[in-house]
Amino acid sequence: MSSEAQRPGAHERRAGHLVIIGGNEDREEDKLVLRRFIELTGKPQPSIVVLTAASAGQDHKCEAYSQAFTDLGAAACNALELCSRDEANDVKAAERLLQADGIFITGGDQKRLLAVVGGTAVDRALRQAFLEQGKCIAGTSAGASALAQHMMHDGGPKSADGNGKALAAGFGLLERVVIDQHFSERQRLGRLLDVVALNPTLIGIGIDEDTALIVEPEQGIEVVGDGAITVLDGRRMSTNFLEAKEHDALELIDVKLHLLPAGARYSCHAPPDPRRRSSRSGDPRSVPPALHDIVSILTAHRRGFS
Amino acid sequence: MSSEAQRPGAHERRAGHLVIIGGNEDREEDKLVLRRFIELTGKPQPSIVVLTAASAGQDHKCEAYSQAFTDLGAAACNALELCSRDEANDVKAAERLLQADGIFITGGDQKRLLAVVGGTAVDRALRQAFLEQGKCIAGTSAGASALAQHMMHDGGPKSADGNGKALAAGFGLLERVVIDQHFSERQRLGRLLDVVALNPTLIGIGIDEDTALIVEPEQGIEVVGDGAITVLDGRRMSTNFLEAKEHDALELIDVKLHLLPAGARYSCHAPPDPRRRSSRSGDPRSVPPALHDIVSILTAHRRGFS
Repeated sequence: MSSEAQRPGAHERRAGHLVIIGGNEDREEDKLVLRRFIELTGKPQPSIVVLTAASAGQDHKCEAYSQAFTDLGAAACNALELCSRDEANDVKAAERLLQADGIFITGGDQKRLLAVVGGTAVDRALRQAFLEQGKCIAGTSAGASALAQHMMHDGGPKSADGNGKALAAGFGLLERVVIDQHFSERQRLGRLLDVVALNPTLIGIGIDEDTALIVEPEQGIEVVGDGAITVLDGRRMSTNFLEAKEHDALELIDVKLHLLPAGARYSCHAPPDPRRRSSRSGDPRSVPPALHDIVSILTAHRRGFS
Repeated sequence: MSSEAQRPGAHERRAGHLVIIGGNEDREEDKLVLRRFIELTGKPQPSIVVLTAASAGQDHKCEAYSQAFTDLGAAACNALELCSRDEANDVKAAERLLQADGIFITGGDQKRLLAVVGGTAVDRALRQAFLEQGKCIAGTSAGASALAQHMMHDGGPKSADGNGKALAAGFGLLERVVIDQHFSERQRLGRLLDVVALNPTLIGIGIDEDTALIVEPEQGIEVVGDGAITVLDGRRMSTNFLEAKEHDALELIDVKLHLLPAGARYSCHAPPDPRRRSSRSGDPRSVPPALHDIVSILTAHRRGFS
């Protein structure tokens, strides 16, 4: 992935990094995931704004992050607390996002987050910070699911009875994917498969706790932390969806599943970037054909801010 | 699938049906799964032996089945209770299996089941009943996992920390597969994926509760009941297994996943049997290429009894 020095000039804006975290990231020990987020702001002493609107108890959340980010070198870490859409439409609140070096969206309930922020001045500032300013945006747990255009609702681990599967509109910083978090820990593969089965245009991305999928638009993706990323690709599956009656189980043939461990990096460029190596083995590897297309989707050029 | 009338003569023995049940099958209402088992014995008033050695509380288990099988037309239903290997080596016990029209293996703990029965006269009789006599053999829950050559241990739903993944030797009536049960209900997709990742020669078969995968050797497979069958095929995946250190997460690229709903039937014959229809839609469908190979493995000719 490119360093700050390689970042294009104002005349060729590139969207920033996304740090999509599966929840429960370490804040006290190695802080691998949060450390990478601070690095990706591109500043030695960045100022961070923490968007806490996904959760009702906002004060407490930010304290833990403030301590961690300060430990990691941040010059400032301030919560942007939003309890209503009026507050989220305050231009001063929006301005705070545009002044920050990095934006971190905490967990909680993604429906609450979007109900407060969706469509407001803060929502537009978030997109502008990412798409025009090239800022690094991180989201954890509910904040991770909210980054994509199609947002999975939180729900109990009840895939068997059909709960926890609804989609809603997220912030739209990623397209053509749907993100689930706490993935291995809450055994959500079945639930994500249900979503992909009914929405085969979307690639399902499941992120383990204390693990982040890092997306650098037009460059590549990277997995950081303790766990893995699960990818479900149903685009070539065949299904009896049109024939099946409501409540019938679906026939799904040929869904592709990939598991990408922490340490893995994949470039979207063809021919594959020879510098890309498994950080674990040190051996250079090319992007496997089945994965290349997924990397291209994740890193696709984003439409400009509007 | 062939009816009893089409069954080959003694000079061309064909193994019997396997009814592989994901546990918690209905015994009081529609009894769909148990009804199909009774049908597949090929007798209007079959005599059933219930092998209860997977569980310590054997009496109670058999009573519920005895009532259900009698309701479904069975002339007799008797438990074969085995508490020790000595009892399982009793030729009279073995003879009871050879005299039965159908054999039903109850749930509990598959390690206990194999510890008592594995390698004994009863084990040999079970194989002989299936392979030489063409008897219908059903197993539910632990009894289902025990049917395959490679048997997954029961374990808590703890795929994230690596529990519940060990393999042991089962009865061997199916080869090249590993069977997990209570599959959607206990969210075991992650755990089965772990097993397939480390054992890519085995096809992972996950069976929902109140659902059965029915295998007719050299003919086809069928899904009966209330849920679905999940198939994980890692034979063409690429992985960093050889490079990864112990406790490292694995990279798995291109695992195939299929979901086969109740009502689905697939013939192993090429060209695909035009009589094969979705029992749900009534439309004829061919076996999708990605699935054809799986059906061939499940229905492969079994080695003769020895």
